[in-house]
Amino acid sequence: MNRLSPEKTQEDRQLRHFARRMAKTPKSFIREILKVTEDPSVISFAGGLPNPALIDVEGISRAAATVLSKDGSTVLQYSTTEGYLPLRQFIADRYRRRLGLSVSPDEILITNGSQQCLDLAGKVFIDTGDHIAIERPGYLGAIQAFSLYEPVFHPINLNENGLDPVMLQQVLGSQPVKLFYGIPNSQNPSGITYTDDCRRELAAVFGKADTLFIEDDAYGELNFFRKIRSSMREFLPDRTIITGSFSKILAPGMRLGWIVAPPDIMDQLVIAKQASDLHSNYLSQRIAYQYLDQQNIDDHISTICRVYKTQCDLMIDLIQEKFPDTVRHTIPEGGMFIWLTLPEGISSLEVFENALLRGVAVLPGTPFYTDGSGGNTIRLNFSNSTEEKIKTGMERFAAVLSSLR
Amino acid sequence: MNRLSPEKTQEDRQLRHFARRMAKTPKSFIREILKVTEDPSVISFAGGLPNPALIDVEGISRAAATVLSKDGSTVLQYSTTEGYLPLRQFIADRYRRRLGLSVSPDEILITNGSQQCLDLAGKVFIDTGDHIAIERPGYLGAIQAFSLYEPVFHPINLNENGLDPVMLQQVLGSQPVKLFYGIPNSQNPSGITYTDDCRRELAAVFGKADTLFIEDDAYGELNFFRKIRSSMREFLPDRTIITGSFSKILAPGMRLGWIVAPPDIMDQLVIAKQASDLHSNYLSQRIAYQYLDQQNIDDHISTICRVYKTQCDLMIDLIQEKFPDTVRHTIPEGGMFIWLTLPEGISSLEVFENALLRGVAVLPGTPFYTDGSGGNTIRLNFSNSTEEKIKTGMERFAAVLSSLR
Repeated sequence: MNRLSPEKTQEDRQLRHFARRMAKTPKSFIREILKVTEDPSVISFAGGLPNPALIDVEGISRAAATVLSKDGSTVLQYSTTEGYLPLRQFIADRYRRRLGLSVSPDEILITNGSQQCLDLAGKVFIDTGDHIAIERPGYLGAIQAFSLYEPVFHPINLNENGLDPVMLQQVLGSQPVKLFYGIPNSQNPSGITYTDDCRRELAAVFGKADTLFIEDDAYGELNFFRKIRSSMREFLPDRTIITGSFSKILAPGMRLGWIVAPPDIMDQLVIAKQASDLHSNYLSQRIAYQYLDQQNIDDHISTICRVYKTQCDLMIDLIQEKFPDTVRHTIPEGGMFIWLTLPEGISSLEVFENALLRGVAVLPGTPFYTDGSGGNTIRLNFSNSTEEKIKTGMERFAAVLSSLR
Repeated sequence: MNRLSPEKTQEDRQLRHFARRMAKTPKSFIREILKVTEDPSVISFAGGLPNPALIDVEGISRAAATVLSKDGSTVLQYSTTEGYLPLRQFIADRYRRRLGLSVSPDEILITNGSQQCLDLAGKVFIDTGDHIAIERPGYLGAIQAFSLYEPVFHPINLNENGLDPVMLQQVLGSQPVKLFYGIPNSQNPSGITYTDDCRRELAAVFGKADTLFIEDDAYGELNFFRKIRSSMREFLPDRTIITGSFSKILAPGMRLGWIVAPPDIMDQLVIAKQASDLHSNYLSQRIAYQYLDQQNIDDHISTICRVYKTQCDLMIDLIQEKFPDTVRHTIPEGGMFIWLTLPEGISSLEVFENALLRGVAVLPGTPFYTDGSGGNTIRLNFSNSTEEKIKTGMERFAAVLSSLR
């Protein structure tokens, strides 16, 4: 081989000059944990996957066959950065119909899953050292995405009504905060939904500041009671960015999300998107639109909500029946997660390890805190298990918790 | 509506605090030009699209039907950040078979098109103010992607043998340069291929420095003479990152590229990829692998090369026959582009405008220069036109050039 001074290159390996941001970006703890829990005898409530039985494989296959046979060489060619216009129009129409929200297709950009929205928002807004606010506990994927742009995180407590407006006001009043990121509907990881009053209070606080509201609405469609909760865009039209996802209502493997933003922000997002990956998968966009145009997505979403509600109710019943009273839990009105708070001093990492020995995996809550706290919290996923598995898994987990004291 | 102090939000609009990087990232001139040239009466040599007639729609449709019917709820579910292992194995095997290059699947990450490789490399390596070197002229997509990370660009001249090693040595000797980005095979925009001697000379220069070589190999498979050119990884195994793409040999709309990097760099790329968009489109990955496993991709690539060579030869013949002698041109051994240099003082932007009036679009070369030069250069694309269109379009363009003096 033509290797030039292999000793030198071996040295180099020790001396890589990675960008500073990489040292600040946490590896996904969830990802690491999921590797541990791959043993098929383990029942896992640790992940965050939709129920595969609720993916309409047949409908999507039909849609794929149709677009490929009707328009194959176009759907497989390069396309526009903004995304397929009829799909953006569909999303805009749905906002109008569902939420009474006026959104133009020009204010919508199709992304490679809604995770990419966070990367694009980071690119467009965050300079090193900028202050940003997030929920406490906050979505790990957002902490990772924003960390790459080296902001200072200000976590704002969640309570059972949503975000703490007093703490928010304190933070926004103490320094210029570029953006707040939150999930007002069935939050990940806590399962908490902001009440209507909470949203109005927050809007009043934001109205006095110069802070963008990034509203991650991955779970808004998965409201078990079909409750309609206002988007913050209704209150703060020029300062709200919404991120949406087809992963929970259609299929995650197609990696289709979208971002809604006012026109001047959209201009910058499109530049960032183009520099990042030119455009989103066009084949998937066309399949998704074909599906949505032909199938009744409302019926499909109703089915998902009905099944998830049953699974969630079962899990809550088992918590109340079998867990020690000292374990507090949230009662989600939608989404995929329940949040547990164990008594102070109990380590959820130890609980995780004990649970794994008994064949059940749960997710310790620490990675959802940017301040290293949350050591006694746990996230449970109910969407990706059968009722049978929920019964057996919760039984096992209850035994672990009961043995704690 | 519940709008809070709409006057204030109107003011905000003037006062958006975008991140500093956005002011440094050029909008795609190509994109703007393509909008102008959408008129169907215009023959366009301005874009960079593969020939749609060479996308195997039928084969891809069959592959899609197969994976969806065999394994639908898996191919539509979330998947791993690194990408589908058999696809990465296929890519690794092909490097071994084609180039005699030893690459492990663990050194391969599937990306959302090869453009995303550049974003990930920027994330992992570039701190604000870092020095990086690129070709002059350089690929616009790379200039855009890296600009987001605010480096100082050092353009290194291309000549007919490839990159100028003397200029490279000067630049690498004058400051620490984190990375060099180049396209050794059938470069975009110039069509130049580095000679074997050039590669060896460059390896010697890089061997004395501490600079990564990012080798964009989007066009290596499209060598009209099936010439095998060594990857820089052969010379600099621990310091070369290769980016690859299925866009030119399979289909761009599936947005599938990949990045090859040594293990310690791969660790960081995977973290960056996960923070950016979790993982690449899994449905597309599975369709691509199914296709590659069933079809003879070598035959397909041979067909593409044969057709592109005919189109390229025709364009070169017409240049030599009809253009003024003062117009210099490259003779590509592959890829999709020919590069024209007009006499000093002639503005390619004016030529572009005149050409458009005559119904033919070409691409002024300035955006491929980070130093504002190149005002007398033009890129011609030959892949996306029929022979008929090449004849008519070149006729029109020759008339424009002949009328210049």
